[in-house]
Amino acid sequence: MILGALEAGGTKMVCATGDEFGNITDCVKIPTTGPEETMEKIVEYFGDKHIKALGVAAFGPVEVHRESPNYGKILETTKESWKYFDLVGSLSSLNVPINLETDVGGSLIGEAWLGAGRDVKSLLYLTVGTGIGAGIMVDGHVIHGMLHPEAGHVLIERCEGDNAKSVCAYHDNCVEGLASGTAIRSRYGIPANELLDREEVWELEADYIAKALVNYIMVVSPERIILGGGVMHVKELFPLIRQKVKKYVNNYLVTRPLEDMDTYIRPAGLGDNQGIIGCLKLAGEVVL
Amino acid sequence: MILGALEAGGTKMVCATGDEFGNITDCVKIPTTGPEETMEKIVEYFGDKHIKALGVAAFGPVEVHRESPNYGKILETTKESWKYFDLVGSLSSLNVPINLETDVGGSLIGEAWLGAGRDVKSLLYLTVGTGIGAGIMVDGHVIHGMLHPEAGHVLIERCEGDNAKSVCAYHDNCVEGLASGTAIRSRYGIPANELLDREEVWELEADYIAKALVNYIMVVSPERIILGGGVMHVKELFPLIRQKVKKYVNNYLVTRPLEDMDTYIRPAGLGDNQGIIGCLKLAGEVVL
Repeated sequence: MILGALEAGGTKMVCATGDEFGNITDCVKIPTTGPEETMEKIVEYFGDKHIKALGVAAFGPVEVHRESPNYGKILETTKESWKYFDLVGSLSSLNVPINLETDVGGSLIGEAWLGAGRDVKSLLYLTVGTGIGAGIMVDGHVIHGMLHPEAGHVLIERCEGDNAKSVCAYHDNCVEGLASGTAIRSRYGIPANELLDREEVWELEADYIAKALVNYIMVVSPERIILGGGVMHVKELFPLIRQKVKKYVNNYLVTRPLEDMDTYIRPAGLGDNQGIIGCLKLAGEVVL
Repeated sequence: MILGALEAGGTKMVCATGDEFGNITDCVKIPTTGPEETMEKIVEYFGDKHIKALGVAAFGPVEVHRESPNYGKILETTKESWKYFDLVGSLSSLNVPINLETDVGGSLIGEAWLGAGRDVKSLLYLTVGTGIGAGIMVDGHVIHGMLHPEAGHVLIERCEGDNAKSVCAYHDNCVEGLASGTAIRSRYGIPANELLDREEVWELEADYIAKALVNYIMVVSPERIILGGGVMHVKELFPLIRQKVKKYVNNYLVTRPLEDMDTYIRPAGLGDNQGIIGCLKLAGEVVL
């Protein structure tokens, strides 16, 4: 069965075909420009692929509740031309069922299905890249609530002496504002990958991510946390983050998963393909 | 149908009977002392009530996963004599099906069933009393994850100039440590109800609760937040909290529920009976 997968990001659109087992058979990247132009190219790509359904993981905020009048639309984004654009509607000419998730929701589903979260039912996937976002699964279901998690915007305490300007336009001390790739570049003036030998950079970074993780743990108590995204390619962050999560939890929670931190907080298992693989899963779920 | 309800708290045990519509027909309070003595009185109370099932909402941490070998046990508590006490096992002589939740989980269920959360599917119930705790419902289901939420221990930023010692033995700046009833009493040397005319007390209190709420909103995106517990009897807190949540969200999230803050953040609808009513619901779910 041929399925379509669309990872709709703010800078690029990854379009792929694959099967119901998560095998990717073809993949192209289209730069995200204006919505009409971009969607035309996407529809053209999928037009002759004979897909049975399309899974979409979209940048947001995006309305994922089917019962909402805004279903399938991008909401209040800073990308002006995409504000209230009807993403799902613009794909209707493909004439296939569409299953929509948030971008991190798609990655979460991929990791839960075939990646580092295969063996648990309650899971948090955090991406630390240009921005920070989380997808959360509880008892096998991705949670949405009123909108969907915006966990990159949890408020955390700054470390003493860190007076860098937050890169979040809304919050002076959310984790995205202080610890995203954009925040690292803004704080030091050079991108993260040119700072690899600067220990203090990663101490601070790990501290902020750990504080956010502790808050996620206290609120949703996930059985596992998977960390992905560009910044997490810096493998040295993992032991630092684990150690700081332990420090901040401070033995308050005694659970089996927390006893084995190397398993509890771990890298993504699908390289950078969890999003597309998650979209294949989403597509498979709505095949008529 | 006669159902049993047990709200097992750290200071008192509320035992009640009622029906499958949430009507309470009888209710007694038993002080929580040592586990054997306390449970004997509870078993005696329910022994002649002809209940068909028992719903239990227990202080914790408590193991609520049926598949766990520790199911029904109190876990690592500071109440030494209750540590690893088999709460559900100690009720087995009643010979009725038992349905166990956390204390706040029980209150959440009560409010979701017949209280201030009747009309939503995704809900957070926060109790601000001696301690602080939250129960979280997503799509009609109470979430547990690895253990269960311990949302009173989210880490928040202290307000400038607040150097009071946290009353949480584990965290220097969790919301329970800084804003529980115990924290108020510790900070000012007198209990909350003698501080009603001290504006700065409630400004600070509202600030800390608001910071915690913003974090819950960013993580689970509840459709409504219900605030209960002794401290929330101070009604003046509600407008302050709403205003500060608005300030800290800072227009980042644009959703219909957030536009109507008086409905979004509201007092409990069942007085102080949500726990017992939640237990009746729990009992009704397991009648054979």
